[in-house]
Amino acid sequence: MNQPVTPAAAALLEAIRFDGAGLVPAIAQQHDSGEVLMLAWMNRDAIAETLATGRVCYFSRGRGRLWRKGEISGQEQRLVEMRLDCDGDTVLLLVDQIGVACHTGRRSCFYRAFRDDALAEIAAPLVDPAALYGAR
Amino acid sequence: MNQPVTPAAAALLEAIRFDGAGLVPAIAQQHDSGEVLMLAWMNRDAIAETLATGRVCYFSRGRGRLWRKGEISGQEQRLVEMRLDCDGDTVLLLVDQIGVACHTGRRSCFYRAFRDDALAEIAAPLVDPAALYGAR
Repeated sequence: MNQPVTPAAAALLEAIRFDGAGLVPAIAQQHDSGEVLMLAWMNRDAIAETLATGRVCYFSRGRGRLWRKGEISGQEQRLVEMRLDCDGDTVLLLVDQIGVACHTGRRSCFYRAFRDDALAEIAAPLVDPAALYGAR
Repeated sequence: MNQPVTPAAAALLEAIRFDGAGLVPAIAQQHDSGEVLMLAWMNRDAIAETLATGRVCYFSRGRGRLWRKGEISGQEQRLVEMRLDCDGDTVLLLVDQIGVACHTGRRSCFYRAFRDDALAEIAAPLVDPAALYGAR
């Protein structure tokens, strides 16, 4: 089932090479700081909805449905600009992240780094995950 | 066939959740400017080699083999730091990109943006692709 799209969005969707499962990886980057926040997946409907609403919507592979980022936690992503790579198989989302991107309460999901021959945690949670998800 | 890895690299590889094809998406970001350059894929051997040599090596899905970035074009990526996301299924590579990342001669592969309801080219080639690939 496809959501209705504007002719402009249809042209963008035409340029995207979705994989065999109808998905494309999407990198979310904080538009002003340049911080890479997370990678998730989008299908056609997720992209159409994101363009239509300005609020980032992914496709959850685990739950098999659209996932409006922040729908439970409140940690939404506002779309600043959608970009596409040279071969059309990856999307870059410049976003304004409300609060934290990571379900662990950290700003970015990439909080583990390989340093001094070990995997180190380089960022601490800014909020308690229980505060994001616990009371529901 | 697995390349030999150090115990430290083995621990990192243990933390990575490769997909059914034995691959993980890897985002390359210029370490100082924060520019997202490209997304490609790595397998176990590509990660082990990258950690061992400090030069970024991907796995080319199209060619079905290891792809040492810049092996033809000379546009290598030096690894500054390898990071891993919360659920271990995406790698973030902080790199120092020699020259341009994109085969079109642009610095970043994400040179198309959805602006004013159209897909616009927001960056021009810095080098002629023929100069990168043509003379071989």
